[in-house]
Amino acid sequence: MDTPRKLIVIGGTAAGLSAASKAKRLNRTLEVTVFERSGYISYGACGLPYFLGGIIEDHTSLIAVTAEEMTMKRGITVHTHTEITSIDRTTKAVTAKNLTNGKESKYYYDDLMIATGAEAIIPPIKGADLKNVHVLRNIEDGIAIRNALKAAKKACIIGGGVIGLEVAEQLIETGLTVTLIEAMSSLLPTLPLPYSTKIYEEIQNHGGDVYLDTRLEELLGVEGRVHAVKTNNGDLIECDLVIIAVGVRPATNLARKSGLELGIKGSIVVDEFQRTSDPSIWAAGDCTQMKHLLTGKPYYAPLGTTANKGGRVAGSNIGGEASKFPGVLGSLVTKIFNLYVATTGLSLTEAIAAGFNAVERSIIKDDKASYYPGGKPTYLTLVFEKHSGRILGAQGIGPESVSGRINLLVSAITMGMNVFQLNDLDLLYTPSVAPVYDPILIAAAQAIKQVEDVQ
Amino acid sequence: MDTPRKLIVIGGTAAGLSAASKAKRLNRTLEVTVFERSGYISYGACGLPYFLGGIIEDHTSLIAVTAEEMTMKRGITVHTHTEITSIDRTTKAVTAKNLTNGKESKYYYDDLMIATGAEAIIPPIKGADLKNVHVLRNIEDGIAIRNALKAAKKACIIGGGVIGLEVAEQLIETGLTVTLIEAMSSLLPTLPLPYSTKIYEEIQNHGGDVYLDTRLEELLGVEGRVHAVKTNNGDLIECDLVIIAVGVRPATNLARKSGLELGIKGSIVVDEFQRTSDPSIWAAGDCTQMKHLLTGKPYYAPLGTTANKGGRVAGSNIGGEASKFPGVLGSLVTKIFNLYVATTGLSLTEAIAAGFNAVERSIIKDDKASYYPGGKPTYLTLVFEKHSGRILGAQGIGPESVSGRINLLVSAITMGMNVFQLNDLDLLYTPSVAPVYDPILIAAAQAIKQVEDVQ
Repeated sequence: MDTPRKLIVIGGTAAGLSAASKAKRLNRTLEVTVFERSGYISYGACGLPYFLGGIIEDHTSLIAVTAEEMTMKRGITVHTHTEITSIDRTTKAVTAKNLTNGKESKYYYDDLMIATGAEAIIPPIKGADLKNVHVLRNIEDGIAIRNALKAAKKACIIGGGVIGLEVAEQLIETGLTVTLIEAMSSLLPTLPLPYSTKIYEEIQNHGGDVYLDTRLEELLGVEGRVHAVKTNNGDLIECDLVIIAVGVRPATNLARKSGLELGIKGSIVVDEFQRTSDPSIWAAGDCTQMKHLLTGKPYYAPLGTTANKGGRVAGSNIGGEASKFPGVLGSLVTKIFNLYVATTGLSLTEAIAAGFNAVERSIIKDDKASYYPGGKPTYLTLVFEKHSGRILGAQGIGPESVSGRINLLVSAITMGMNVFQLNDLDLLYTPSVAPVYDPILIAAAQAIKQVEDVQ
Repeated sequence: MDTPRKLIVIGGTAAGLSAASKAKRLNRTLEVTVFERSGYISYGACGLPYFLGGIIEDHTSLIAVTAEEMTMKRGITVHTHTEITSIDRTTKAVTAKNLTNGKESKYYYDDLMIATGAEAIIPPIKGADLKNVHVLRNIEDGIAIRNALKAAKKACIIGGGVIGLEVAEQLIETGLTVTLIEAMSSLLPTLPLPYSTKIYEEIQNHGGDVYLDTRLEELLGVEGRVHAVKTNNGDLIECDLVIIAVGVRPATNLARKSGLELGIKGSIVVDEFQRTSDPSIWAAGDCTQMKHLLTGKPYYAPLGTTANKGGRVAGSNIGGEASKFPGVLGSLVTKIFNLYVATTGLSLTEAIAAGFNAVERSIIKDDKASYYPGGKPTYLTLVFEKHSGRILGAQGIGPESVSGRINLLVSAITMGMNVFQLNDLDLLYTPSVAPVYDPILIAAAQAIKQVEDVQ
């Protein structure tokens, strides 16, 4: 009898477990072993800000499947607290180090799946190693911050990206005095400037403070514990908790050491089957390079959806069913108090940088009929080709319904729709969900004018 | 100097005023005259149920532009309380009857726009002329019902379509005892059966009563005022207010008398420019036949969005700028208490009737991440071609976010998307607006299985 084929998976969250589960489902004889450095697998990292705020009371709620369930129900072996320290591509083996007892073991693979994700960037500044200075990347980080919150009164958040904004919202909700510091002149700087202003005001209106154009220079401590942030403008912001959210980078030290081809930001280069430059090694998720659907070029957007889907594609190919990952649009949504901000496709800056002859058009319109109560202003931006009207990107900010409207544009952009076709869509209407001319149709009509001026 | 060209518009709501305004905007020398039989123009008829319930306090809130503003701001003459009683296509003239003083006048046109809308169907039963028996079609109906509500305690609503359901919701909200009677065995009968069950339960849970498979046989009165509904099952339902909402038919007596070509349900046949069989006469809105985008066949769906867009297309062509109306998908949404029901494209029954080799697949999934509070079950149905997976229709019922998801499918169906492409969409994700696999992706994945079983 043949020995069963072996799949080893490095990383036990979205991409890794999607690959493991899919491959095992397709090939029941496959021996699947997952190694996870932390103590937790299968958790929803995107829920971590809400665990800090207490909306999610217990961290176990974030865990979809435990290691035990993975073994019992899916027949997949899981080793937590175990780090893969090296890959020997010649003998097709990995070295696993048990982080509890330091013991090292060797495991052989037929297929290897790398799903090491991304790691939080910590700027090289003085004081970054002080107590109560945190990043928020995994459950352990979440638990540490939540413990720190018990005694904390003033928090300083470094970075006005999605994680920084979500954490700011949640810490304000728990009653802390919160200051958010952003090095650029706007929050979510790839979006049009008015978006930043609206988010800024939303945070200020809820009692938070925001410093733009401000860089973190040093973290000051007393008895090893952070007590103030010093900025490049000479401000000293007192705080007893600092959360650094200035971005992530692909966690690809292992891949680099193994000689796999790396791409932008050091992410692992994979083909549309999620295969790396070594035909026995697959990768997916935040550690890999992606393809942008519109430009066809390499792109890096570490997101949970992409990780899950890429992992599933890899698992499918490993399990024997050919599958391709078509690419991403960089679709992103976040909530800051009552404001939802969403984007898909290219911003105007990105579109021009990618060589498109692009323009943008923004409109503002309530999301319900004018006479129906509760309508809220929806700000929509379309980015499109000046001559053809082909839609390249869309951004929106407003009530929750913004996310449905931007999702519509995900579908439109993917199918190559232009603003004329958008304007003709037979969209839903009732006073409680839209005005008779949906904000999308208003935006399309305005965009058409701009295209016609050119034609 | 040439005499200016004359446009006469019959009907002063969505289609008529869209045409009048667009034509005048494009051709400032055009003389535009609008005739409206009722006392009101430019009102949002879809808001009438909410005027009954008091959500919209004053009927004037429903009016976007008054006759005076139409004249002063847009240079359009408006005659209210004036009915066009005949069209003389040979001399290109209409006879207008002032309903206040009975006086008749003749007006000549170069272009005539018919936007007479639809009228409520009143079944030929005994007692339909009793006091407190109403339909809800225009502002006068709304005011009459709202006056009747002051003394009413028990209402009976005949018809479980969109208007019947919206009126039922609103009358329950005002504290009335409400019974809804539907002749078919389900509410909104073109949708899958579980949808009817959910709506039924939502009404019952809010204290309303629903009789399915029940026909209105007679309205019984005391001293000329309705006091009970007699059904074909022998039930006597006591009530002091009856609202008949069994459907509408195109109001095309004038068009028929004038010899214009009529289509399904007696609606006016128009081409893609909204031109009737007489090249000087245009029509749009609820009085016209439409084209279904998927079948390419005649279709009749009287809706505010279609009326506005069709009127704008007619006005554009009259004003000298060529414009086409591409067709409709029959997109529809309504709200019953906390349930939103939406549909676009073909139901399974309609798809099969249209000759498609179609199947349907339904899924149920919360609209937020499982660990994020407030997620509500979203029930989604995809109708698609069995062999190709091309999407033909979609229905959804659940929280408000259902409407955004079905709008996404409007875009997908319009662009000819199949379920494989749907499954690959890079949709938005954050725990507060969607699970990591959006309900749409879950539905697509399930549909794919069905297509693959066939392939």
